[in-house]
Amino acid sequence: MTPGYYPPPLRAAIVGTGGISRTHGRRIRDLGSSVVGICGRSVASAEGLAADIGGGDVYTDVKEMLDRLRPDVLHVCSPHGHHAGQARAAIERGIHVVCEKPLATSADDARAAMELAAGSNVHAAVCLTKRSYPMVAELRSRVMAGSIGTVVAVRGEYLSSDNCHDNYGWGFDKSIAGPSYATADLGLHWLDLVEHVTGTPIALVDARFSTTRPVRIRDGEEVAIDVEDYVRVFIELADGTPVSAVFSGVTPGQPNGCAIHVDGRDGGLDWRVDTPNQLGHRPPFGSTEILDRDPPRLSAEAQRRSFAPAGHVEGFGDAFRNLFRDVYWSIAGTAVPYPDFVDGFRVATLIDAIRASAERGTAVEVPAPLERHAR
Amino acid sequence: MTPGYYPPPLRAAIVGTGGISRTHGRRIRDLGSSVVGICGRSVASAEGLAADIGGGDVYTDVKEMLDRLRPDVLHVCSPHGHHAGQARAAIERGIHVVCEKPLATSADDARAAMELAAGSNVHAAVCLTKRSYPMVAELRSRVMAGSIGTVVAVRGEYLSSDNCHDNYGWGFDKSIAGPSYATADLGLHWLDLVEHVTGTPIALVDARFSTTRPVRIRDGEEVAIDVEDYVRVFIELADGTPVSAVFSGVTPGQPNGCAIHVDGRDGGLDWRVDTPNQLGHRPPFGSTEILDRDPPRLSAEAQRRSFAPAGHVEGFGDAFRNLFRDVYWSIAGTAVPYPDFVDGFRVATLIDAIRASAERGTAVEVPAPLERHAR
Amino acid sequence: MTPGYYPPPLRAAIVGTGGISRTHGRRIRDLGSSVVGICGRSVASAEGLAADIGGGDVYTDVKEMLDRLRPDVLHVCSPHGHHAGQARAAIERGIHVVCEKPLATSADDARAAMELAAGSNVHAAVCLTKRSYPMVAELRSRVMAGSIGTVVAVRGEYLSSDNCHDNYGWGFDKSIAGPSYATADLGLHWLDLVEHVTGTPIALVDARFSTTRPVRIRDGEEVAIDVEDYVRVFIELADGTPVSAVFSGVTPGQPNGCAIHVDGRDGGLDWRVDTPNQLGHRPPFGSTEILDRDPPRLSAEAQRRSFAPAGHVEGFGDAFRNLFRDVYWSIAGTAVPYPDFVDGFRVATLIDAIRASAERGTAVEVPAPLERHAR
Amino acid sequence: MTPGYYPPPLRAAIVGTGGISRTHGRRIRDLGSSVVGICGRSVASAEGLAADIGGGDVYTDVKEMLDRLRPDVLHVCSPHGHHAGQARAAIERGIHVVCEKPLATSADDARAAMELAAGSNVHAAVCLTKRSYPMVAELRSRVMAGSIGTVVAVRGEYLSSDNCHDNYGWGFDKSIAGPSYATADLGLHWLDLVEHVTGTPIALVDARFSTTRPVRIRDGEEVAIDVEDYVRVFIELADGTPVSAVFSGVTPGQPNGCAIHVDGRDGGLDWRVDTPNQLGHRPPFGSTEILDRDPPRLSAEAQRRSFAPAGHVEGFGDAFRNLFRDVYWSIAGTAVPYPDFVDGFRVATLIDAIRASAERGTAVEVPAPLERHAR
Repeated sequence: MTPGYYPPPLRAAIVGTGGISRTHGRRIRDLGSSVVGICGRSVASAEGLAADIGGGDVYTDVKEMLDRLRPDVLHVCSPHGHHAGQARAAIERGIHVVCEKPLATSADDARAAMELAAGSNVHAAVCLTKRSYPMVAELRSRVMAGSIGTVVAVRGEYLSSDNCHDNYGWGFDKSIAGPSYATADLGLHWLDLVEHVTGTPIALVDARFSTTRPVRIRDGEEVAIDVEDYVRVFIELADGTPVSAVFSGVTPGQPNGCAIHVDGRDGGLDWRVDTPNQLGHRPPFGSTEILDRDPPRLSAEAQRRSFAPAGHVEGFGDAFRNLFRDVYWSIAGTAVPYPDFVDGFRVATLIDAIRASAERGTAVEVPAPLERHAR
Repeated sequence: MTPGYYPPPLRAAIVGTGGISRTHGRRIRDLGSSVVGICGRSVASAEGLAADIGGGDVYTDVKEMLDRLRPDVLHVCSPHGHHAGQARAAIERGIHVVCEKPLATSADDARAAMELAAGSNVHAAVCLTKRSYPMVAELRSRVMAGSIGTVVAVRGEYLSSDNCHDNYGWGFDKSIAGPSYATADLGLHWLDLVEHVTGTPIALVDARFSTTRPVRIRDGEEVAIDVEDYVRVFIELADGTPVSAVFSGVTPGQPNGCAIHVDGRDGGLDWRVDTPNQLGHRPPFGSTEILDRDPPRLSAEAQRRSFAPAGHVEGFGDAFRNLFRDVYWSIAGTAVPYPDFVDGFRVATLIDAIRASAERGTAVEVPAPLERHAR
Repeated sequence: MTPGYYPPPLRAAIVGTGGISRTHGRRIRDLGSSVVGICGRSVASAEGLAADIGGGDVYTDVKEMLDRLRPDVLHVCSPHGHHAGQARAAIERGIHVVCEKPLATSADDARAAMELAAGSNVHAAVCLTKRSYPMVAELRSRVMAGSIGTVVAVRGEYLSSDNCHDNYGWGFDKSIAGPSYATADLGLHWLDLVEHVTGTPIALVDARFSTTRPVRIRDGEEVAIDVEDYVRVFIELADGTPVSAVFSGVTPGQPNGCAIHVDGRDGGLDWRVDTPNQLGHRPPFGSTEILDRDPPRLSAEAQRRSFAPAGHVEGFGDAFRNLFRDVYWSIAGTAVPYPDFVDGFRVATLIDAIRASAERGTAVEVPAPLERHAR
Repeated sequence: MTPGYYPPPLRAAIVGTGGISRTHGRRIRDLGSSVVGICGRSVASAEGLAADIGGGDVYTDVKEMLDRLRPDVLHVCSPHGHHAGQARAAIERGIHVVCEKPLATSADDARAAMELAAGSNVHAAVCLTKRSYPMVAELRSRVMAGSIGTVVAVRGEYLSSDNCHDNYGWGFDKSIAGPSYATADLGLHWLDLVEHVTGTPIALVDARFSTTRPVRIRDGEEVAIDVEDYVRVFIELADGTPVSAVFSGVTPGQPNGCAIHVDGRDGGLDWRVDTPNQLGHRPPFGSTEILDRDPPRLSAEAQRRSFAPAGHVEGFGDAFRNLFRDVYWSIAGTAVPYPDFVDGFRVATLIDAIRASAERGTAVEVPAPLERHAR
């Protein structure tokens, strides 16, 4: 059965009240579901979000919210360090979870959350949202179909200008955001894309961390920064394919510069999140083809994520809605693939390995993904 | 007062069940409003749309639907020839209207609808949706602020590959779609943009129509086509500024090629709907600046239409939601500018003048816009 | 026989000492030929050019130069109003001519020069240099080979920011530059391209002229400008194909914006002189192909104009050298096609017709090209 | 003194008869100099080049050619392994040298050639030709002028599709081309650019080599390839700036993909060799500026390498001519900076270090450049 546009409506709750919470709240409502509860650090912040997204009871304790409201699904949008614990609180109560990335600030915490989810009946999703862009699905479909031949290399980057200034923010506080900034906040999307579109797991990482702005200003005072804002990484896939990337939160003029280039023996494919409706297809010689997101011409997996005609741009909001829609349909009993806690654990494993590699200055092997990790 | 994201919810009805009806239905629901009724040519088509957008009672007679359901607002998404009559049916019942473009297939019909709306208490909007893209608002703000100096020329095009085939469709049937295809279906957006972003009305049009595919196939039989699929037009603004454009429904590889270039004495500005998050700003010499949609750096009118951070693409769905949101807030008593039936009449006047010019092969003067036509 | 890179060396003379004279002088020498004489308005200006291009005797009277030096070829690089007369002086002496565009400032003058050339044994070329870019040859070859099907429309522009200021220059003086600026200086390249790449002559022109900067400053004083700096034009080809263009010398941020778009029933082709190594090929739906100038993959006519490998940019200098090379080989007895005085007369005819149309504000028929006008 | 376009003419000889020899021969002649001798592996190959570039006596022994012809300058265009020896042969005879890159296939050989040159009176240049593009000079000038603030990172790549096939070629034969392919043939340009535009030497390299096509076909038989065709490299500059790059000879659809991105605290700069007339300038937020090569708006070092107006593309041939022109003027006694054997040795040192790093799989320190190495 092909699921319709609207999954059966759910009663959702959100924990966290920052910018991404608004995106969650709006996209939940886009799907016809409702936000029944909002949990913030303060009543004021929760009320602010409630006003913005049109309601929801206000809480400052996530467990209390879950116990009182018994929502169908909890969207975890809090700072990174709280993700796993809040996700577990939901799962323990039999409540489905849509968790912002990263699932946890360590592979151990991610594993615990994943195992809890595995032993439960809940759906537990992680917002590896790049997968929800139609042309990422098309990229993956083309690689899988052999249209560029055997993959011989992957290149790319996740560049951001988010922190091209000297201000401090919670993303630099290890006790809140965990021990990594650029890898855990930006790079993880790219790492997930590599495994997702090639279908081959990462086996080795060799990373170098830099902190290009080692001092930032909080409340007028200098704070020493000890998390990375710039990452260079070599990767080897399990079949030996060489991969390389840069992840940065300090690159001028790159508001959202996530790009992946997959090179095969017979061609290459290019995608960027800031022009998400196009996919470049490079034959070896003579030309480059710019593929438009034109629904009737896409693979099935791309088509089911694409609702507007060619030339009518779909973007960030559409990708989030696509992700939530897949999860909500799955909750409703119509199985649709979505990035789950197994993927969340996988990504946390990759982040940990990259961090370990950067600390040691040497390559670090990455364990194979879990068996059931069918992508 | 700055209106919030969600206007107070309305009970909406839709007449018409084609592709654009789905967009309306989904965007209505995005705003937290509901679709209570759907009117189609057949029960089956209305039921199809109802299934797709999650409900709504089904009708085949729009007046019956309006009388029985008494919706707050009617969205008119039917073939062009029905727009004005169905809009009037709503207005006569004191029901607000959001009408797909064109408002009518003749200026006379548009005038009648406009006058009916003017004498009523309803809000009556026309989907001149390009205005709802943030970077169109930015383009207009920059022109108005004098950042390119006096405007000396406007160039552009609305190219589409929609009909780069030989199939017949209702868009070619004058009795359904009215006497113009490429002008009334595509060009009108561009004509509206010219007046909207320059703030200066069109005074003269001089057009040439072509039918590049004069025969199309319906049910295996050849049908002679007598509406234009390719338009070349010269325009003069009231201050004498020269303008030129091409409107086409038969241009290969242009799924949605609406582009406008405004040239001033001190610079130029460029926008395209298929890369809507960018605005080109050309100083006379030495460089071109590509402006990103970065909310804190935009004009107020652009900012209020922009919800995602820079680099996080907003597109077609966002523009429609922006338009409906402005109308719904206005219905709720918070006045927000939106393209209304005065604009709809204006555009119909322009289409009629262009058609008359093409028929005669000479320039045709366009009456001044109505006095209250503050843009 | 395929001519080699270097034609047999010639003794060339140049009349005119502005910027384009330097380009001629250098490209003549690139081919191994020598510049034996330079004629300027003053000894000083001629000496300046001689110093710059490494020699040549200096004259202020072109006939004297021709009589004394008896060069093989005269390159006419003077202001437009002198072109035809100086070309005639050379032809009368049996000296070959390479004349900058336009051949003359009226069709009558161009015809006289053409007829003189036709009755002589000299080669007489006009610098319609856009034809000498490899990807223009490729565009033409693809149209001729039917790769986009029957041509249904041509669009484009020649935009320049040359005069985005208020300074006067000789280009605005009718007694020196002739009665047209934007058409005769810029648009003529585009007009020639349309006939060249489609193989179909222009039958009708319908133009509107604007002077967006009607006052300019010479020596601190205001001068009224009465030639056009902005042109809008409709064109019909002999087979009825609709064509439209803008020619402008006052468009900000367009240092050399010559672009042509040829749309056919089965696809479209796009070329721009400021990215001359690429050719866009648009199938009707789904993608656009960006063709690289990759010599082994080009048509014969494109290949013979292309010397660097793909990705190694060829440009303006290469195009001029290609043109001169074709003329010099022809002079040496190896016939290679180049734009000649028949083409120069054709273009002058088109300019005159456009000017007449703009004056009258109506369409003007253009006579068919001369019989021998095999393109 | 500003040197003119044409340096005093020299008598040049060329050793090597492949594609790049043609480029040398033509650009030598562009400058008004002559090619008096050509040395090939066979008389036939030398005669082929002589026919192509219009003459020159033919030799198969470079020393014999030098002794007999006593040219002013030798252009070394042979396979890599012969560069240093042939350059030395010229220097020993007091003959100036323009040597294709790399100067040598090992740092030791490069040092010997450099030292020989240093003790002589000859000018000895290496074709690090990217420096001769005007917008590279502009990029360097802007970095030096502080327009992007302190450099915090450099990213980039040299990708080529040259060997996206299975054919063998001499570039894979260590005895002819030396022990590196992708680094020594492509990457060296990028390595030189990094030091050239930042003004800061490379202090550490950490590279990984891949051979993505380990078997190629020669004369119908399989040959095992043991040089790298794909390189990933981390670099640290002497001030700790992190740098990363990919060099590849096997990337589909990248005929000449050399790109460098220099990121500073206050902005970033981007350049690509396949669109060499543009330079991207990224402020931290809000927009990207695309700078045109517009001579009057460029830095002095960029201006002196730029001869065509903005929008009139300069490319590959122009860059080679610029380089030779600088060398020839220097030979004539007008000192103009050009990449010399000190630079050639520097690059060979970097290649050796990268190779050593790749072999060991660890970072390798790079000695500081020679003292006089003023860039």
